[in-house]
Amino acid sequence: MTITHLDILSAAKTLKGHAHKTPVMTSSQADALTGAKIYFKCENLQRIGAFKFRGAFNAISKMSSEQRAKGVVAFSAGNHAQAIALSGREQKIPVVIVMPSDAPASKLAATRGYGAEVITYNRETEDREAITSEIARSRGMTLIPPYNHVDVMAGQGTAALELMEEVGELDYLFVCVGGGGMIAGCAVITKHLYPNCKVIGVEPEAGNDTQQSLRSGSIVKISTPKTIADGAQTQSVGTLCFPVIQRYVDDIVTVTDEELCSQMLFFMERMKMVVEPTGCLSGAAVLSKKMDLRGKKVGVIISGGNVDPEKFASCLSRGKQFIF
Amino acid sequence: MTITHLDILSAAKTLKGHAHKTPVMTSSQADALTGAKIYFKCENLQRIGAFKFRGAFNAISKMSSEQRAKGVVAFSAGNHAQAIALSGREQKIPVVIVMPSDAPASKLAATRGYGAEVITYNRETEDREAITSEIARSRGMTLIPPYNHVDVMAGQGTAALELMEEVGELDYLFVCVGGGGMIAGCAVITKHLYPNCKVIGVEPEAGNDTQQSLRSGSIVKISTPKTIADGAQTQSVGTLCFPVIQRYVDDIVTVTDEELCSQMLFFMERMKMVVEPTGCLSGAAVLSKKMDLRGKKVGVIISGGNVDPEKFASCLSRGKQFIF
Repeated sequence: MTITHLDILSAAKTLKGHAHKTPVMTSSQADALTGAKIYFKCENLQRIGAFKFRGAFNAISKMSSEQRAKGVVAFSAGNHAQAIALSGREQKIPVVIVMPSDAPASKLAATRGYGAEVITYNRETEDREAITSEIARSRGMTLIPPYNHVDVMAGQGTAALELMEEVGELDYLFVCVGGGGMIAGCAVITKHLYPNCKVIGVEPEAGNDTQQSLRSGSIVKISTPKTIADGAQTQSVGTLCFPVIQRYVDDIVTVTDEELCSQMLFFMERMKMVVEPTGCLSGAAVLSKKMDLRGKKVGVIISGGNVDPEKFASCLSRGKQFIF
Repeated sequence: MTITHLDILSAAKTLKGHAHKTPVMTSSQADALTGAKIYFKCENLQRIGAFKFRGAFNAISKMSSEQRAKGVVAFSAGNHAQAIALSGREQKIPVVIVMPSDAPASKLAATRGYGAEVITYNRETEDREAITSEIARSRGMTLIPPYNHVDVMAGQGTAALELMEEVGELDYLFVCVGGGGMIAGCAVITKHLYPNCKVIGVEPEAGNDTQQSLRSGSIVKISTPKTIADGAQTQSVGTLCFPVIQRYVDDIVTVTDEELCSQMLFFMERMKMVVEPTGCLSGAAVLSKKMDLRGKKVGVIISGGNVDPEKFASCLSRGKQFIF
C-alpha cells in the first residue's frame, strides 16, 4: 500500500474549500543570510494551526457511510488530535482522541473545544496504541493514525503541491520529519512535478531515527527523544512512510534545540509569526546552513504554530543565546 | 491640502512591486466570539513589519530629483523610521532618522540596519520636531513626517483599498489611530468605494485625543499618554489628518491596555501571529465588543508587528488575566 501523485491531486480536490490555501511568505533577511531565495509555506496558518488538518480531513472523507456512523478514534500528542476533531465535527461524525496527559494545555483544550471526547494516558507507563485499538474494537470506531496511513500521507502532500503551484520549480524542498507522513506525501508530488528538486528531511538531533533508518536501509527504533520539538518525538518512522521516503527523499539532516529556538526567534522578530518548535525544524536547517544553498530556490514547509505562550516565551529567550 | 480617492489609487500604482500585498486572514473563533464575519488585513506582515512602509515609500517617490540628491529626514518612535530608512535605501537617497533614545531596541537596530543615520533624543526633555527641523535646514534635507503629510496619508490608504479589492464591500472598517494618517487615507478610499461602510477609529483609552477632538470639533492636545500602545502615544492628531477624519470617520472608540494584551494573546494563540500593542487596537475593539457587530461584515486593519520578544512575552502573560 503506497501512494502516487494521483492520490495527492485527488486529496487537493477533496480539501478545496475546507483547508486554507495558506500564504507563502518570503523574507529578504532570510535570503541575505543564506544567499538563497526562500519560500516559506505557512502551515502554521492552516486550520487548527498545523498541516495535520489536510491529512485528517482527507482520511475521514474516504470512510464509508457505515464507518462514519460509528465514528473515528485517533491518538496524538496534539496537532493530529485537533485535526481529527475538527474534521470529524465538520463531517458530522463522532470522534474520540487519545492524548498524553502531559500534552500542551492549549492542545488538550482545543481538541475538546472541537467537540471531541478526549481520553488521556501516561506517556511513560501506558501504550497509546493498545488503548486506541481497544476503543476502536469495543466501539467499532475507525482508527486513523497520525502518519502511517495512505490517505493521511496523500493529504499532507497537498502542502507541497500548493507551494509549487504558487512559486513553480524549486531546487530544494525542506520538510520536517516526525512519523514521516508529511515528508512522504510532499516527496511524492515534488518528484512527480520536478524530478530534479532535492527533498530534504529535517529531524531534531536527539531524535534522528529516520536519518538512521534511511542510512541503514531499515527502520531504526529509538527511545522517546528529549527535544523541544514535541511533534517529532516519534520513536520510529511509519512502516508505510518509510519505503516512500527511501524512494523519494534525498537526505535527512538534523538541527539542535538551540537552533530551533533561534529559528523561533527569527520567525517572531523578522517574520511576525508564531511557529511551534517542530515547525521550526525545516527553517532552522536552512538558516543554520546545514547545506550550501547559495543561488538556489528553496521551499521550506513550516508545519505548525501550536505552542503555549509560556513555552514560546522561554524558547524566544533561549533563542537569544544563539542567534544567526 | 487634502487627499481624494485618486491619490490613493495613484499610490497603489506606485507601491506595486515594492510593498507586499499582505494576506487577509479570517478566524472562525473570532467570528464565533462576535457573531460577525471578520477580515483581518495583516500589515504586520508588510515590509518592515508595519503599514508605514506604504506611506513612506509613496512620499519619497514624489520628491524631485533636487530633493532626492539631498535626502530625507524623519522623526519617529519606530515604524515610520524603518519605513523611511528602507524606502530611502531602495530609492537610493540619504536618510537621517531622529528617534527617542528609549525606542524599542529592535526598532533602533532595524533602522540602522537599513542604512540610515540615526540621531537619538530624550523624549522627556527634548523637542523632536525642533531637532528634525534643524537637520532639514542645515543639510537641505526634506522632512517627511510620520502622518501629517498628504502623500503619507495616501500611501496608508492603500491598505484599505487592497482589503476591499479582495473581500468586497464591508459594513464596518476598524482602524487604529495614532497621528491619524492611516485612518485618514483608509476612510477616504472606503467612503469612495462603499459610502455605507462605517469607518471606526480605535485609540487607547489613556490616549483618546482624537476621540475628544472629533467630539468637540477642534483638535485637542493631551500630555503623552501612558499606554503599551507605543505607536499611539501621540499628543494630538495631525492638522492635515483631522479635517479628513471629521468628514469621513463615523466614530472613534477606545480600548484599555488589558484589552490590548488579551487581543495580543488571541492573535498569538489562535492566529499564530505576532502583533505589536498598537496593532492590536482595532482587533481589541472588535473582540471586546465595543460595538454590536452581529451579522456584519467587518474589516480590521492590523497595523504592525514590531515588538521586542521581552515585551511580547510580558503582554501575553498579562493577557491571560483578562481573556475574551
